[in-house]
Amino acid sequence: VTTKLPKVGTTIFTVMSALAQEHDAVNLGQGFPDFGCDPKLVDCLTAAMQAGHNQYPPMAGVPALREAIADKIERLYGRRYDPTQEITVTAGATQAILTAILAVVRPGDEVIVLEPCYDSYVPNIELAGGKAVFVPLGRSGEPGDFRPDFDRIAAAIGPRTRAIIVNTPHNPSATVWSAADMRRLAELLAPTDVLLIADEVYEHMVYDGRAHESVARHPLLAARAFIVSSFGKTYHVTGWKVGYVAAPATLMHEFRKVHQFNVFTVHTPTQHALAQYMADPRPYMDLPAFYQRKRDLFRTGLASTRFRLLPSEGSYFQCVDYSAISDMDEVSFCRWLTTEIGVAAIPLSVFYEAGREQRVVRFCYAKKDETLQLALQRLARL
Amino acid sequence: VTTKLPKVGTTIFTVMSALAQEHDAVNLGQGFPDFGCDPKLVDCLTAAMQAGHNQYPPMAGVPALREAIADKIERLYGRRYDPTQEITVTAGATQAILTAILAVVRPGDEVIVLEPCYDSYVPNIELAGGKAVFVPLGRSGEPGDFRPDFDRIAAAIGPRTRAIIVNTPHNPSATVWSAADMRRLAELLAPTDVLLIADEVYEHMVYDGRAHESVARHPLLAARAFIVSSFGKTYHVTGWKVGYVAAPATLMHEFRKVHQFNVFTVHTPTQHALAQYMADPRPYMDLPAFYQRKRDLFRTGLASTRFRLLPSEGSYFQCVDYSAISDMDEVSFCRWLTTEIGVAAIPLSVFYEAGREQRVVRFCYAKKDETLQLALQRLARL
Ligand SMILES: CSCCC(=O)C(=O)O
Ligand SMILES: CSCCC(=O)C(=O)O
Repeated sequence: VTTKLPKVGTTIFTVMSALAQEHDAVNLGQGFPDFGCDPKLVDCLTAAMQAGHNQYPPMAGVPALREAIADKIERLYGRRYDPTQEITVTAGATQAILTAILAVVRPGDEVIVLEPCYDSYVPNIELAGGKAVFVPLGRSGEPGDFRPDFDRIAAAIGPRTRAIIVNTPHNPSATVWSAADMRRLAELLAPTDVLLIADEVYEHMVYDGRAHESVARHPLLAARAFIVSSFGKTYHVTGWKVGYVAAPATLMHEFRKVHQFNVFTVHTPTQHALAQYMADPRPYMDLPAFYQRKRDLFRTGLASTRFRLLPSEGSYFQCVDYSAISDMDEVSFCRWLTTEIGVAAIPLSVFYEAGREQRVVRFCYAKKDETLQLALQRLARL
Repeated sequence: VTTKLPKVGTTIFTVMSALAQEHDAVNLGQGFPDFGCDPKLVDCLTAAMQAGHNQYPPMAGVPALREAIADKIERLYGRRYDPTQEITVTAGATQAILTAILAVVRPGDEVIVLEPCYDSYVPNIELAGGKAVFVPLGRSGEPGDFRPDFDRIAAAIGPRTRAIIVNTPHNPSATVWSAADMRRLAELLAPTDVLLIADEVYEHMVYDGRAHESVARHPLLAARAFIVSSFGKTYHVTGWKVGYVAAPATLMHEFRKVHQFNVFTVHTPTQHALAQYMADPRPYMDLPAFYQRKRDLFRTGLASTRFRLLPSEGSYFQCVDYSAISDMDEVSFCRWLTTEIGVAAIPLSVFYEAGREQRVVRFCYAKKDETLQLALQRLARL
């Protein structure tokens, strides 16, 4: 068969996880915790199954969960979404983003993508018949700067632009957009009818007293936005594959048309479990402190190596420049690091369409302290 | 926003379930059981969570589950699929079908759809930029005959035909394809490169000593087919949203490219639970007897009404002709039946693109005996 996605191979996350396992390396590549979730959450899911919540839920999600999501967004970001018409539960954030794109991107439409970016965005756009228009992140020209450059974004907007995808806190760079960034984006989009897809899956991982600038805080943006988030990342259950989308009713109406013919609905007992578990805000309110401590532990350990630490404002990723250690390209360096040093990382180049090289790799520090310590011991050899 | 799917509204299943609830009607509309699953299956899922299986599984699915699926297909249908390259676990059958279509249907391609058909197929084709080519089921011209007419199918195949979708046991008509049907299809496709998408979600519900003619039994077909099935239907957990696809490696390679950027993976602990539960073949081997008894109970009850029973060879659906009772159109009749008689059904017209009227509605008998009895009492008034 001829392929519709000639550039797509197996995701690097799968490749590096397999290599890590094969070589018994500490896996700081793929983004997932190596510790368990709160046992209460497991109990909630068991209780939901035992209560008989095992058949199709409503297409848009279990009402109690949509209500809990709307309440959380309102409490944290001050915007009230109507749970009946403006919130939909999804089979993870990736499904949410593909579904939003299929719902609004028509053949020939352009979608602005800020690079580096998560590897699903571009294939998603292509599956809808759209065209990705790439704008590099970075304002100062300094290596390690991944802040948005609004002049370049403005220049990329044209008559065929249907949407822009914004991801904050940012995977892979760990950059967090500021309120000023969001205001600039709002000014820039206001005179257009460009839609916004906001990937906010790391919303509860923002450090050093910063606030997550959800698009929900910015009415001009929220009015044209699909906001996507993830329970897997917030509650340490990446394998449960539940996320959600919040969007104004007119956009959500189109989203649900595609959603109902993609997955139709999402794992019923998990939705009931999450609804119950969300009643207590502490698990997500405590998350910044939880991960900031791990970030600091990891950064402190790396400070005495020849890696140069890049800023790390949010998410559970830490990027490092390894140019003082090696002049291998990033993919080779990651393979070498995995097989010879015993620590898996992800090359930044894979987050670029054209595979840009800047001698930077990404570590995930969502790991037990002992895992981080073992990785640091091995990295200290460099 | 302009819509990409102008013909799509809320699925009839959602509409009728809501109406049934509002009017306290017995819901024989949407296809799902009103009884629970085997408590063992719940225990398996709890055990999987407690064993820590809560992070991302491999993209194609938990290896033990893929192995169990391959074993089952081999035992029942005599074809061995390679679990590493030819089986992928999906977030239900609907996601599997969209993903297969997105993977192989290019803009302008035609896909043959046999009507009546499940309501996701046509929007799925349109989202890929393809065009549905409709062939009505029915060979004799008699009402209630939904067997495939191979002359009409042959006539529909043209240079742009990319695939045909075949569903057996058939929703909504309860027709089961015979071995001769499959051989005819194989002859017809052999000289072409038309792909086959086989929706076999009711594979374990085939009655009166018939065998399910899986495409997996027919090498010429299997070589060009995505075979789709569903655990939700087999194990009475429609809300768990897990299914799978089996396909030759070259096709599966394309499937996985889309799958990894749609849902990426499926609920980890549920996959472990299903792998363990599948070790015992009895739950699916006993399913025909279990549902045949319910079918017979329901048919016997209806025999004394003025509904004319259509054949019911497989699936958990029973279609009836109500022309001796009413001359309302099908949608109106279903609304009336729900609100005035207290039994919800699904109009057959919604399974046709152009809404054909034949005074036939579909009941789902995947219900407790007492539920069926209550429905029969109410229907006896007619
Ligand atoms: C889909 S596996 C990816 C996990 C992740 O989000 C990442 O590592 O970037
Ligand atoms: C997606 S809800 C549908 C259940 C079902 O398959 C049917 O009723 O036909």
